[in-house]
Amino acid sequence: MDRTEISSLGEFAFIDRLTKAIKLNHKSSKVGIGDDAAVIEQETGSDSLLTTDLFLEGVHFDLVYTPLKHLGYKCLVATIADVYAMNGEPKQVTVSIALSARFCVEDMEELYAGIELAASIYGVDIVAGDTSASQTGLLISMSCLGIVKSGEACLRSGAKPTDLICCTGDLGAAYMGLALLEREKKVFADETEAFEPDFARKEYILERQLKPELKVSILAELKAKGIKPTSMIDISDGLASELLHICKSSKVGVRIYEERLPIDYETAQMAEELGLNTTTVALNGGDDYEFLFTLPLGLMDKAKEIEGLRFIGHITEESLGASLVTRDGSEISLKAQGWK
Amino acid sequence: MDRTEISSLGEFAFIDRLTKAIKLNHKSSKVGIGDDAAVIEQETGSDSLLTTDLFLEGVHFDLVYTPLKHLGYKCLVATIADVYAMNGEPKQVTVSIALSARFCVEDMEELYAGIELAASIYGVDIVAGDTSASQTGLLISMSCLGIVKSGEACLRSGAKPTDLICCTGDLGAAYMGLALLEREKKVFADETEAFEPDFARKEYILERQLKPELKVSILAELKAKGIKPTSMIDISDGLASELLHICKSSKVGVRIYEERLPIDYETAQMAEELGLNTTTVALNGGDDYEFLFTLPLGLMDKAKEIEGLRFIGHITEESLGASLVTRDGSEISLKAQGWK
Repeated sequence: MDRTEISSLGEFAFIDRLTKAIKLNHKSSKVGIGDDAAVIEQETGSDSLLTTDLFLEGVHFDLVYTPLKHLGYKCLVATIADVYAMNGEPKQVTVSIALSARFCVEDMEELYAGIELAASIYGVDIVAGDTSASQTGLLISMSCLGIVKSGEACLRSGAKPTDLICCTGDLGAAYMGLALLEREKKVFADETEAFEPDFARKEYILERQLKPELKVSILAELKAKGIKPTSMIDISDGLASELLHICKSSKVGVRIYEERLPIDYETAQMAEELGLNTTTVALNGGDDYEFLFTLPLGLMDKAKEIEGLRFIGHITEESLGASLVTRDGSEISLKAQGWK
Repeated sequence: MDRTEISSLGEFAFIDRLTKAIKLNHKSSKVGIGDDAAVIEQETGSDSLLTTDLFLEGVHFDLVYTPLKHLGYKCLVATIADVYAMNGEPKQVTVSIALSARFCVEDMEELYAGIELAASIYGVDIVAGDTSASQTGLLISMSCLGIVKSGEACLRSGAKPTDLICCTGDLGAAYMGLALLEREKKVFADETEAFEPDFARKEYILERQLKPELKVSILAELKAKGIKPTSMIDISDGLASELLHICKSSKVGVRIYEERLPIDYETAQMAEELGLNTTTVALNGGDDYEFLFTLPLGLMDKAKEIEGLRFIGHITEESLGASLVTRDGSEISLKAQGWK
């Protein structure tokens, strides 16, 4: 593969090369990359949604087993997930990268290919950015501007006691994909001979880790049925953390049921292989990017018509706290994750 | 001074502590920090402006001589400058930080104090963010959402031959402030005894480097007089680079005059002390955050009424290239900077 040093282009030619394939699709994206700021036309009766995310090498991703194209794809998906989790439509994204001398132009073209692929699949425009040298490794910062009809945003603060707690898919799979990749990396490091990692029958958990997709069709079905969640969040840090965010913002408690946690067969199998408790994996594994939301109890029958929707518990009074009801009927308090 | 380890709070309590003083001032800032995304009400007849900037320790700033409060102030100023450079009004800002274990909670409170001070002075709301661990040093990423009346945005692409080239203040001062700080840092490193850096009669260049301000009053006067620049950009990478951006976007050439370059006395004196050419310092020194813009020749008399506005040259046909006319009448081609 070609290796063009970034220094051979300089900053401005490098930016030109990375961004030349980027097209603007939204009528509202009036001016994109190449000026001080993007210009975005506004609509009446709407609110803008603005969110931002950081991704650092060695903290959020490991390039030993993460192809740059997948990385770009995943970062964009993770960023726009926050706008969907507000019940909005992501429209414009800014992409900033900082990179050390280890990376060449072709590396960054791979990264951008993944970013642009995700942008085209989810229908967002890349409109602005910044690039910089970095002393250590790769860093990606993305912001997303989205739109939602006034009054239609789903905040974390709207959950009410007796509301149902729903999520859009199975949990813990991305974390088990990560654990598998970490294990194979370690095996590879210890091997002296040629090594071929064994990923057979682990495709699902790997895909969940390396190329997550958002269940936007479920959100669209909710809208089509006229169902507005009372609160919503995307599951990036793990189910327990996200539930606690809703508890704090809505001043409520939650009760979820172990037997109702959606867990895929590959996830359960990988957890067993690694000697991990499957429930803990589903509660605390991050990176799933499923949507977690609450609905008034009266909408249960209507919501049940939506394929793929899982009902995992209900909202309680704040004084009852946040707990998991285990299969044997005992209650365990939920704990937040987050970095330290 | 107290030192609270970030690990003693955990991510979520750390975010709460950093952001508890942040207030929302704009009616349009409906939901700020604490949900997946900020919610921003839209106005009719307006365009949104979206921009983003990265600031990395060891690349963009050196904490040996940059107080964290100043750093926060400067990063916010640099970020919103891009929205002003589009002829818009910055409204909402997102702030993401990544930090290594070297930093404690009080350090980040200092940084945020500077960010919030600048936000209150320039009237912007901090509405969203992300925090993360970093393996090496401090990283700050900010995005700004602004607003401009439809049709009033000043792009880089609107300059026409014969347009005047204007800037809002003197150039090279911030770079000479940086050079002074770097020199004193080196002297300090070589000293074995107590060392007091000598900053007497260098206050202006230090302030330009450590706590830049934006000449928003000049932009307001232009608006009050009904003068809309044909193109505009903020001077962050140096005058030569910014002129070349305008040339490229507008498909024009530029001719600026050495004798018209606005240079402060302290800047010239520091350049002389360091054996640097003052013109080169004014052309290529970054971080000044003055605004550079072009005006139709016919508006010269009207624009001359605005105090502090400098006329440094004019736009030419593209075929004439970009050049500086020296005091002795010879022409020198302008070269871009940018990182490699």
